[in-house]
Parts: sequence; C-alpha cells; structure tokens
Amino acid sequence: MPATAILPARPQGILIDLAGVLHTGDAAIPRSLAALHQLRAAGLPMRFLTNTTRSPRTTIMHKLAAMGFDVQESEIITAARATLQHVHALGLHPHFLIHPDLAEEMGPSATEPDAVVLGDAGPYFTFEAMNQVFRLLMRGLPLIAMARNRFFQEPDGLTIDMGAYVSALEYAAGVKAEIVGKPATAYFAAALADMGVAAENAIMIGDDVRDDVQGAQNAGIAGILVRTGKYRPQDEHDPQARPAMIVDDFAAAVRTILGQ
Amino acid sequence: MPATAILPARPQGILIDLAGVLHTGDAAIPRSLAALHQLRAAGLPMRFLTNTTRSPRTTIMHKLAAMGFDVQESEIITAARATLQHVHALGLHPHFLIHPDLAEEMGPSATEPDAVVLGDAGPYFTFEAMNQVFRLLMRGLPLIAMARNRFFQEPDGLTIDMGAYVSALEYAAGVKAEIVGKPATAYFAAALADMGVAAENAIMIGDDVRDDVQGAQNAGIAGILVRTGKYRPQDEHDPQARPAMIVDDFAAAVRTILGQ
Repeated sequence: MPATAILPARPQGILIDLAGVLHTGDAAIPRSLAALHQLRAAGLPMRFLTNTTRSPRTTIMHKLAAMGFDVQESEIITAARATLQHVHALGLHPHFLIHPDLAEEMGPSATEPDAVVLGDAGPYFTFEAMNQVFRLLMRGLPLIAMARNRFFQEPDGLTIDMGAYVSALEYAAGVKAEIVGKPATAYFAAALADMGVAAENAIMIGDDVRDDVQGAQNAGIAGILVRTGKYRPQDEHDPQARPAMIVDDFAAAVRTILGQ
Repeated sequence: MPATAILPARPQGILIDLAGVLHTGDAAIPRSLAALHQLRAAGLPMRFLTNTTRSPRTTIMHKLAAMGFDVQESEIITAARATLQHVHALGLHPHFLIHPDLAEEMGPSATEPDAVVLGDAGPYFTFEAMNQVFRLLMRGLPLIAMARNRFFQEPDGLTIDMGAYVSALEYAAGVKAEIVGKPATAYFAAALADMGVAAENAIMIGDDVRDDVQGAQNAGIAGILVRTGKYRPQDEHDPQARPAMIVDDFAAAVRTILGQ
C-alpha cells in the first residue's frame, strides 16, 4: 500500500491540472472560475501542468481565457514544451508523430532523424504514421513520448489517449519509451523550480490518480484528487496511489488550501 | 532457459506457417514450391496455420495457387475462422474491428454487442474505430483478438501487426485480451485434431520464434524455425524460445523431415 502524503499547513505554491479539473472540453467546471479567483487573491504562485498535447501553449491560454480563466501563458507548463526542451538539451533531431496543431511549436521532423517524439496525434494516429515510426524504432531510434495517459474525459465520453499508442509501439518494436510529461518526476521538479517553491510546500490538484496525484507524490508533492473529469470511484482504492486528500472538485480543493 | 523440443523420428503430420515461410508478399520463397511438392509426394498430411487476418480463407488459397502452391481450402486453418468458431461456441454477438475484406466471412457487427473481436484491420485501425472499441471495453465487454503478432515481413520492410493495437487497447482500457490464433495452445490442438495426428508425431515450421515455434512447443509439437520472413539473427538466442531445429528455409526443413 503506498504511503499517504501530508498536505503542507501553509502551502506556498500550487500545481494544477487543466482538463478535468478546471474544465471539461470547452466548459468550465462549476465553481472553478470563482475558486481560481480566490487562489489568485491569496497571492499563491501557481503553475498549470497539462499532458494534453494536441494544442500549443498559446491556444490553451486562449481557450482558458474564452472560458473566463485568468491564466498567463508563462504559467502553463505543457508536456509538449517540456519535450521540446528535453530533445534540444540532448541535441536530438527527432521525427515527430504529433497533432498538426502542434507542428509550429515543435518544428519540422528531421529528414534523417535520430529519435522519435510522440504527442497525442489523435485522429492523425493513422496506420501509415504508426508504421513509419515503427520502422524507425526497429532501426534503433529511441522513443520519447510527451505522455502516456490512458484516456481523457470528452463531453461525449471517455476518449482513448496517446498512452495507448505508446504501448502499441513499445510492444511492436520491443522498446521502452521515455515519458517526459506527468508522471515524470523531472516534469514536476521543473514546475517547482519555475515557481521557486520546495516540494514539501507545494500541492498538486488533479483528476488522474496516477499521473497527477501519484506522479506528484513521487516527486515529494502532496496530491489532491478531485472527483471530476476522468475520476472514477475505483480511483479512491487504487493499489498504486494514495492521495493526500480526495475532494469533490477544484472549488473544494481551494477551500481546503485556503483553510476555509 | 526453455527446454529444446525433440523432432519426431517419423513425423506423421506437418503444420506450416504461410507468410514468411512459403512466400513473402506475392512472391514464393526460393525452393519452397518444389519442397511442398516433395512433402505432398511423401503423403504426409499437412495444415497451414496463419495469423494473417486481413483476408478470408478462399482469398488466401487463390493467392497461394497464383504463386503455384497446391493447397486445399480445407487445409488452411486461419486465426479468423478459429475466432469465428470460438465466438459462436460461446454464443457471443461481437462488435468486429477487422479488415473490410474479412467482413463477409465474419458477418456484421452486432448492434448491441456483448464482446469485441479484433483482427488485423491494418489501415482501418483508425482513431475513431479504436476509440469506439475502447468505449465498449470500458463498458466491460471482453476483448477477443485473433492474434497478437508484433510485425510481419512485407516486400518493402517489416510492418506493424495487430498485436500493437491489442496492446494499445489493453493499456487504455486496463483489460487483458484473449488470443485465439498462434501461439494459443487450443489453436495448435485444433489443427492436430483436424489431421488426426498426436502432438509428439507432428512438426511445426515457422518464421516467428515465439508465436510459431514456442507456441507449437507449448502444445507439445516440435518447432522448426526458418531463417526467412520476419526471422532475425537474435531469434536464435531468444530467452523464451528454443526451437527443436533452426534451418535456412522451408526447403531445408522439408529435407530434414524427409530424412534427406
């Protein structure tokens, strides 16, 4: 049984997942707009961590703004940007299998790639695109994945996420992908460093009991699970994750953080 | 280290994989035509076992005939037909995610399915089709897969096979698929029963060290691995499979069987 993390008595920075916590699709989750205002008013620094890799950061910011959320571009830390920084740091020239909306942010695929980078291509996970990547992996190129989420909540139901395609390629090519976004410890650590807050003084709020909550707790950050988005009742008894707290929604998490 | 199986001194029946053993794409593998004639002349019963699930049995027979292979429809045991028999025996009404060429053999998808059946849909493994199946699995329907091969040899290179998509769905939905074709023991046993030959008197010839050779050996049938098709040198040191014999091609396997 995993250990339960302890919430800091005086949190100094908040990490917040986006889809399923603040909004579902294009609709704000009830009371989340007011709750974010309260958190802002308390002067707490925050960063928004998203494994959603179908859109660049600016698009995410504009989408949040259209729903009424006051979020700065610099506060949004996407798995896509973290991946770009990672491949640059390693000096790699990847072949990208990503959603076309992300192409401008990531840049073009190399003509002679030395790595494969996977994002959530969604409908662009065609057989041809998968087979092209499979053949690169069989030549020995490493597989770097922005995330490996299992599914996400869409307005019309749960939807298969890029983790399925990571698993598909790992199985076919007999390789193991490196995951850059949540639940990677380095990803949470980078967000903390960006705020200048120590892990034990931060809180992560998410709807994914493993990638958000357990991932944060593996990085030393107490995690709050919300009962919105992709949350399902069995998450409360997950064998691998024991949230510091489980609350109904983002507004309830903010009330707890602000000691109300 | 897995045990090595022993080849029967007087084999009474031969099981033969098709793609990668007799042919690659539409081209017969050198010397395989003459070798099959020799095997026929020796009067040995044989069955052809294929996890290729993009074509019905008649199409496979005609394709083999066009290359010059004398194979009867009744000698071809496809994973697709075995799956159809399996779901009929269980009284299931499946949703099919299969190649359209297989639609007539398998019949239409049920409007209110109680199971999901996966074949090698190839280019028809679209995101939409995968998400539809994912949602059925999340409702608790069992996943039955005709095969879970990793890849196969096409004239232009190795190609990703349906096992990748089985793994994708297993990961996303948190389920485990039932595999009907090779390497399932029941599939080899059905082929033996069809010939009326005991496992210890049969030999399996294949290019897939795990699904053909180890699968057969798990069913008590000695396996010969050929160095054609998807064979790769590392297969000779596979940690999970130890073929009874490894030979250059089908013709060499037949020479061994006929004691030449």
